[in-house]
Amino acid sequence: MTATGLTTSETLWLLTLSAACIGILANTFQGDGEPLIASLALSGLAFAFSFCLIRWLGDVFMRVGLKGRDMAKTRRVEIPETMGAVCAVVYLLVIIVFIPFPFYKDIVAATSGGGNRDVVMELQQVETGRLLHRFPHSKLASYLSAVLSLQVVVILGMADDLFDVRWRHKVLLPAFAAIPMLIVYFVDFGVTKVVVPLPLQSYLGELVDLGWLYYAYMAAIAIFCPNSINILAGINGIEVSQSILIALMLLLNDSLYLSPFTPYPHPATDSHLFSIYLLLPFIGVSLALLLHNWYPAKVFVGDTYCYFAGMVFAVVGILGHFSKTLLLLFIPQIANAAYSSPQLFHLIPCPRHRLPHFNPRTGLLEPSTASFASSPPAKPIALVLRLLHRLRLLRLTFNDAGEITETTNLTILNLWLVWWGPMREDKLAIGLLVLQTVCGVLGLVIRHRLALWVFREDNLAV
Amino acid sequence: MTATGLTTSETLWLLTLSAACIGILANTFQGDGEPLIASLALSGLAFAFSFCLIRWLGDVFMRVGLKGRDMAKTRRVEIPETMGAVCAVVYLLVIIVFIPFPFYKDIVAATSGGGNRDVVMELQQVETGRLLHRFPHSKLASYLSAVLSLQVVVILGMADDLFDVRWRHKVLLPAFAAIPMLIVYFVDFGVTKVVVPLPLQSYLGELVDLGWLYYAYMAAIAIFCPNSINILAGINGIEVSQSILIALMLLLNDSLYLSPFTPYPHPATDSHLFSIYLLLPFIGVSLALLLHNWYPAKVFVGDTYCYFAGMVFAVVGILGHFSKTLLLLFIPQIANAAYSSPQLFHLIPCPRHRLPHFNPRTGLLEPSTASFASSPPAKPIALVLRLLHRLRLLRLTFNDAGEITETTNLTILNLWLVWWGPMREDKLAIGLLVLQTVCGVLGLVIRHRLALWVFREDNLAV
Repeated sequence: MTATGLTTSETLWLLTLSAACIGILANTFQGDGEPLIASLALSGLAFAFSFCLIRWLGDVFMRVGLKGRDMAKTRRVEIPETMGAVCAVVYLLVIIVFIPFPFYKDIVAATSGGGNRDVVMELQQVETGRLLHRFPHSKLASYLSAVLSLQVVVILGMADDLFDVRWRHKVLLPAFAAIPMLIVYFVDFGVTKVVVPLPLQSYLGELVDLGWLYYAYMAAIAIFCPNSINILAGINGIEVSQSILIALMLLLNDSLYLSPFTPYPHPATDSHLFSIYLLLPFIGVSLALLLHNWYPAKVFVGDTYCYFAGMVFAVVGILGHFSKTLLLLFIPQIANAAYSSPQLFHLIPCPRHRLPHFNPRTGLLEPSTASFASSPPAKPIALVLRLLHRLRLLRLTFNDAGEITETTNLTILNLWLVWWGPMREDKLAIGLLVLQTVCGVLGLVIRHRLALWVFREDNLAV
Repeated sequence: MTATGLTTSETLWLLTLSAACIGILANTFQGDGEPLIASLALSGLAFAFSFCLIRWLGDVFMRVGLKGRDMAKTRRVEIPETMGAVCAVVYLLVIIVFIPFPFYKDIVAATSGGGNRDVVMELQQVETGRLLHRFPHSKLASYLSAVLSLQVVVILGMADDLFDVRWRHKVLLPAFAAIPMLIVYFVDFGVTKVVVPLPLQSYLGELVDLGWLYYAYMAAIAIFCPNSINILAGINGIEVSQSILIALMLLLNDSLYLSPFTPYPHPATDSHLFSIYLLLPFIGVSLALLLHNWYPAKVFVGDTYCYFAGMVFAVVGILGHFSKTLLLLFIPQIANAAYSSPQLFHLIPCPRHRLPHFNPRTGLLEPSTASFASSPPAKPIALVLRLLHRLRLLRLTFNDAGEITETTNLTILNLWLVWWGPMREDKLAIGLLVLQTVCGVLGLVIRHRLALWVFREDNLAV
């Protein structure tokens, strides 16, 4: 793990990529410029920067103590920790530098008509052109509030990685990060009405104003997304790859709102472009991290990355007004959180680490266990555990008296190993990614095929 | 230094202060609300929070290695370092929470007229009331960009304190932090014209468009302010107290643009309210830090604080459009930077630390020196040094051959000790604060009495 420089071939292809991206970017300055193209080019640059920085800064991080041992390897070498912070900083820089692309020409184009009627036409054009789309200027505050929230989560994530905040406080860190976004939402937009599903409309009317409950709901999303990624973690590459998959499926969903899938101009186009602009560079920096974090990992990502990734999704879902769709892509995370809850709430013992156990003899991962060493579980809990054991939703160990002595830890990583037997770390990660993809695609199908049964409007039918 | 809790009397008066502030804040929700009052109350809360957190987090910081020894004390105990980061985080939270106060009612008030002519009247009222002043909504982007820049400087400052960035790279960190502010300035405001002084107007016209040079100028301000505070540092309390003084004088300057000093409505009122809203909580958190950092210091502030403080001033000066006035309040810092430059550019030797030397026998500070041990200075440099020595602008030491062997380090802290002889650490700090005050007041007098000779307009004569 002493390879802190880039190899010649890496240098060459990163330089080629960067040159191509810079070329494309320079080209967008000519003519009207195309924010979407610029965003793609910047994401390429973000990938190249992150890749280099992760490699170069490894030693520096280790020197100040940001390092950890990989417990699931035969040789437990120390590798740099918290590398997600590097990605997050590059990401923040890129989305800030990106601001002029979608926002600049709006004012210019909208006032160039010299005060005559053409102005209105032009404004219309500016707001509805597809690839050439520019945001109305009022969206700037909302974009900036997104950047603010992401910055706060990065600051708090770094503080967490540094000071090892207690689990109970940790859970609420993203709530602080959501404050800027919610406050700007309050002063700038302030819509707290939601569309009522058709079957309920006769009772509640077409729209219902949730008031402060809507802010509580948004805060809940912002707390859930980062933490759910943070607890579906622990093996090489799993945090980054699940985040990339979610981002890709969000992109797929966004693209359904753009031409040619959707009648033109659609009211949700802006929200989905907003989402694309935030997701593309996220995928860029995450890919660079994945190349270093995939089995066998050369760096760890740190809690910073999990918070940062989850917050990107929360921001995109909330400010893009598609938080319900977002949750459909989090099905494995929701399942994992629900499955984990008996341990998180200490109904059954919860060891400090619940990641699968590495068997150095076979080189494979096995389900890790929590022991009832001090006292067997209470009657009702034991009953439920035995039922789940029968349903193969966990695996129990019994003593001679038939009492429960151990249970596999309640994470879907361990459950996967219960189902399919011991396997190598990367096989486990791939298995879960397949699960994530299948659930996500199903979720999107539900969203776009079945949603019309309960809601009146969709991208396919305005 | 083991006192990490609050004493009973501290707890009592902090609780009283907080209760009073919360009461005032709650009161602003009634009726129209007054952003200025809310800002004052929030600043009081910011003070109380920072005070408690600095006390509570001391141990935590020491445990992760953020600690340092005070070299200017007989007992060189270890105390927590980088406590400025705590203040900065509290500050950021407060200015984010403050957003609804100046911005919320704008839209509501401006549209409540129901579409008739009153709307225009109301809008006018909203924009020009004094204490009840609300910002037009378009200012939100500019406010958010200020918060963004401050957050970036805090992230980079923390990285600097953690990784000990090299001096050469350090200088440029604030330039990165200025990017969000400059980009939003570009897309949102974009005015790069400056008023030409009267004597030059016959040549250049009334306004001259500086174009990208104006952005370079703003970046230069953003680089200068944080770094100039960072190099006028090294003795207990000096970083925080000079920052508080500058902030107070900026407040004084701002208040000159409010009623009753200035004809009503003045075009610069908005900019100066903007500045007040950012400065009040800064003074709040800084006072809390000063109480712990003043001689004998119980905590160190860290580079984070210097960057953060300098960036607050840069943001306020740039977005408030009074950067020239700002520089008039930085006279001691400018003098110190100019005086230091021969050492910073390595024309004469520059030791790692240039802070005054502590004499444990007397308990007083003496000028520290840089030695020409390896080789005597080159002829022209020696000539200048001898001249400065004659003018008492530094103190040289000679060997028997009359060659220069040592010079006092070129900081105004050392110069002050050359002038007035050895003194205790707090006396030195007070001396420099008096200097800062005198220079600042002079600067403001120049600005407001003499500026009309070269510019046509001022707060007193529109």
